Amino acid sequence: MAEYRFDEHELHGQLVIQARKMSDNSTHLKNLIADESRLASFSVNGGGLFFDYSRQRMDKAGMQLLFELAEASGARNRFARMAAGEKVNITENRAVLHMAARSFADVPIMLDGRDARAELMAVLDKIRTFTNAVHSGEVNGSDGQKFKHVVVVGIGGSYLGTEFVARALEAFADRDIQLDFLANVDIHNFGAIWTRIDPQRTLWIIISKSYTTAETMANEDLIRRYMIDCGLDPAKHIVTVTSKGSPGDQGGGREIAAFHMFDFIGGRYSVTSAVGGVPLSLYLGYDRFERFLKGAEMMDRHAINAPAEQNLPLIAALLTVWNTSFLGYPQGAIIPYASPLSKLAPHVQQLNMESNGKSVDATGRFLAEPAGTVIFGEPGTNAQHSFFQLAHQGKPFPVEFIGVLNPQYRMDEGCCKGVGHQQELWANLLAQATALAMGRENDDPAKYFSGNRPSSILVIEDLEPESVGRLLAFYEAKTVYEAFIWGINPFDQFGVELGKVTAGTLRKAMAVHNDNPADNFSGLDPINRRYLQMLSSGKLID
Amino acid sequence: MAEYRFDEHELHGQLVIQARKMSDNSTHLKNLIADESRLASFSVNGGGLFFDYSRQRMDKAGMQLLFELAEASGARNRFARMAAGEKVNITENRAVLHMAARSFADVPIMLDGRDARAELMAVLDKIRTFTNAVHSGEVNGSDGQKFKHVVVVGIGGSYLGTEFVARALEAFADRDIQLDFLANVDIHNFGAIWTRIDPQRTLWIIISKSYTTAETMANEDLIRRYMIDCGLDPAKHIVTVTSKGSPGDQGGGREIAAFHMFDFIGGRYSVTSAVGGVPLSLYLGYDRFERFLKGAEMMDRHAINAPAEQNLPLIAALLTVWNTSFLGYPQGAIIPYASPLSKLAPHVQQLNMESNGKSVDATGRFLAEPAGTVIFGEPGTNAQHSFFQLAHQGKPFPVEFIGVLNPQYRMDEGCCKGVGHQQELWANLLAQATALAMGRENDDPAKYFSGNRPSSILVIEDLEPESVGRLLAFYEAKTVYEAFIWGINPFDQFGVELGKVTAGTLRKAMAVHNDNPADNFSGLDPINRRYLQMLSSGKLID
Repeated sequence: MAEYRFDEHELHGQLVIQARKMSDNSTHLKNLIADESRLASFSVNGGGLFFDYSRQRMDKAGMQLLFELAEASGARNRFARMAAGEKVNITENRAVLHMAARSFADVPIMLDGRDARAELMAVLDKIRTFTNAVHSGEVNGSDGQKFKHVVVVGIGGSYLGTEFVARALEAFADRDIQLDFLANVDIHNFGAIWTRIDPQRTLWIIISKSYTTAETMANEDLIRRYMIDCGLDPAKHIVTVTSKGSPGDQGGGREIAAFHMFDFIGGRYSVTSAVGGVPLSLYLGYDRFERFLKGAEMMDRHAINAPAEQNLPLIAALLTVWNTSFLGYPQGAIIPYASPLSKLAPHVQQLNMESNGKSVDATGRFLAEPAGTVIFGEPGTNAQHSFFQLAHQGKPFPVEFIGVLNPQYRMDEGCCKGVGHQQELWANLLAQATALAMGRENDDPAKYFSGNRPSSILVIEDLEPESVGRLLAFYEAKTVYEAFIWGINPFDQFGVELGKVTAGTLRKAMAVHNDNPADNFSGLDPINRRYLQMLSSGKLID
Repeated sequence: MAEYRFDEHELHGQLVIQARKMSDNSTHLKNLIADESRLASFSVNGGGLFFDYSRQRMDKAGMQLLFELAEASGARNRFARMAAGEKVNITENRAVLHMAARSFADVPIMLDGRDARAELMAVLDKIRTFTNAVHSGEVNGSDGQKFKHVVVVGIGGSYLGTEFVARALEAFADRDIQLDFLANVDIHNFGAIWTRIDPQRTLWIIISKSYTTAETMANEDLIRRYMIDCGLDPAKHIVTVTSKGSPGDQGGGREIAAFHMFDFIGGRYSVTSAVGGVPLSLYLGYDRFERFLKGAEMMDRHAINAPAEQNLPLIAALLTVWNTSFLGYPQGAIIPYASPLSKLAPHVQQLNMESNGKSVDATGRFLAEPAGTVIFGEPGTNAQHSFFQLAHQGKPFPVEFIGVLNPQYRMDEGCCKGVGHQQELWANLLAQATALAMGRENDDPAKYFSGNRPSSILVIEDLEPESVGRLLAFYEAKTVYEAFIWGINPFDQFGVELGKVTAGTLRKAMAVHNDNPADNFSGLDPINRRYLQMLSSGKLID
């Protein structure tokens, strides 16, 4: 069987032709959605979610081609092999087992002779025990009182997913624990947190797989020094989440406990591992974290087992590839109509852009066009008052709306001309999707709406832990399916290397100057030399 | 003089040719920036900021064309006329006088027979008096104790700019006042705030020009009812920021005071008016708000008076037009290397996208391509761990880096291999800009960096109120200059109308059903009918 290459496959050419068809007026969304059967034909229910793609610029012939492309790419096959432990992260020769972290069926997932699932479940067990000990007060701060403040110290994938889930499930935070995030090396981040907490009753979770992440190590150093200054023993206030045997897993009384991460789960896919597990269990209770995992597991099963035409993340992935590579949309927005989901877009921004922002496919050759797309978003209705002017009348971009059917607080008392708050949210969500698609004629060009602007609506049942788990797993699976269809490896991130190396050069030059102020950065290129001189003088370049 | 039309002007064609020149390998950024004089020739200092555009894909010939385009568009002339009170918001026949709100020179700005500047100064006076009365305790909550919590109730431009400034100046919040924002109609937003505050000691600032904004009115209604339930008199806990004579400015004891907004300042340009003035003065002290205004005023003078080749916001605007319309970049990122500036990108996202996301120019005709660009961003170094993989190896997008020379907390103790926290931030900022521009060869395509990815660096001296004011005014002026070069009106926002109208239809249908559950939404289109049925059943569509 010939090696699959996205931009050389015969179907790619057919999809290009299909895309041209969609510029015709007859295929304007206002015409496509007039069909009574449109919603039924272009929506799917599965894994606990409902996905409506009736307002995507698509017809049945086009969907057929996309499903054939999915087949040709072997995406579902590769996804299943990933779940079974095959080393699909081919450039780094690693397995990809974030799904094993929430696989409760007692089936081993063997990897190099060990059962990876069992190892992950053992970590879960340790998390549960530790969480209960913290909540009961058995494990406590320096003065015998319960911990009441937990700070996640980590950057990127070590915190973005956790922050999304914590905010989404904020209504369940009833363990008298406040959760904060310390990510940036900018000292203001630390300062703002330090002024808020009671150090005696604060537990710090240091999260870094290698335990060498610059920002996290800098923050840990600061935290330890500040605690010592307060007369506290840092070892009694720190736990680590790190790989076995890393500098943060040395025992010897440097921390209360170390929870293990593994190289078969990348940072941006790690929220269902100890990375999210430790902070979220402390914040919400272990039982709720487990419910969240079970929701994710349900979506995983759907992602693996559902046939293509009923597979939510696969269909959503195909549509993103369609929008990006065939209709040429260079970005997409995620707009959840629910305040608790306000940190979803920043998480998916990392998950998806860091996974799929690649120019090279899995055969090691350059793609004709890079894969991936820019993701951004704000919750609705806020987004309407921010950038929806451009969504309606500027250069179009596809929108993924998310609606919650039964949130915790319904407030059905009339708030807004005879409807409740929740109804007001939905009236706006549906109105935006409709208006973007329909457009509206007007002789005054300033008031003309071209319409034909695509969107999807993803509906979740409620904001319970299971539903949030399904949502998280949906986006993980969608991201991976996009990658498999583009034929790229979503699991590496070589693009961050050059910046690191270059920062090292500049850091070294600064350190040399710190030791010897007479040094004038002469080894550097002209521009950076001038900047480092500016920084040491403290005066703007003239 | 012929009417200026961006896409028909002779210079447009010349710039298209110039853009093709920039695809040549000789104009790869790694070659452009090797020139010793590159930084000096492609940077400018003014209005208290330093702007480095040495890593933009530009040469001297191209800059010359851009300056000629600025001249041809009459942008500077229109900007000055705007400042003087001319009705440059032509579709709505209004003046645009956000700069008058911070114009301390005693020079009238006449508008329809009244001195608009004097009216704004009178409001500032009222803010100062009120702020001092709150801080002294003279104006207080229901039990005689000082207010300690202030909540801004407003959406879009009624809060995004304020949230940016408040976060930027958080280090100066020494008035024992905590500031929160209640924007969304989603009840969770209200709920989260209500659980945090002490209602007896909370002051609510209701902000809406017309006093009819659906979300804000819904939230106000909720707040009043909750206060009454607590036995409080809402009128003692509410001030409004609204237009003269609106339903929020009726006197009659509904609120402590009303501060006026004017139709010559749009929401997204309003943070230096009472919209920002009331909450920020309470949070930071009136004196610091005034310092912030003076910083903005300094940048305004620069924006009006500096010749094109030394004009920071004009140059930055020309480069955005260049990147968007001639190099075809469909989005841009704003990456401030300072945690306090973490809410800058959401504010500029609204300011710029709602202003310039238009398809129609000021002559009332459709542009060949829409104006405007998608803006997104996160602070550095966080962004490096989120989406910079794509920035380096995916489809390129221009980046606007922002660096702070002398922030409050320097922490020069070694944190990171011999450098302090602030130095670590700058090493990373400069490294990213360098790496994006330079790229790096590698036989392994997965590790190959194409480089030639443009960026600017904006340097501010510190995070004092004046500097934050300069930064705010810089982005306002840049946005307006972009619009004048594109030849569009940045001050209207007709693109939000269709969504409002459509929401009204759906809201009405829901209200009818609320009254009569037998009604089955039969008057609606098939898709929305199905959704409203789903919502009232509480079950996902099957």
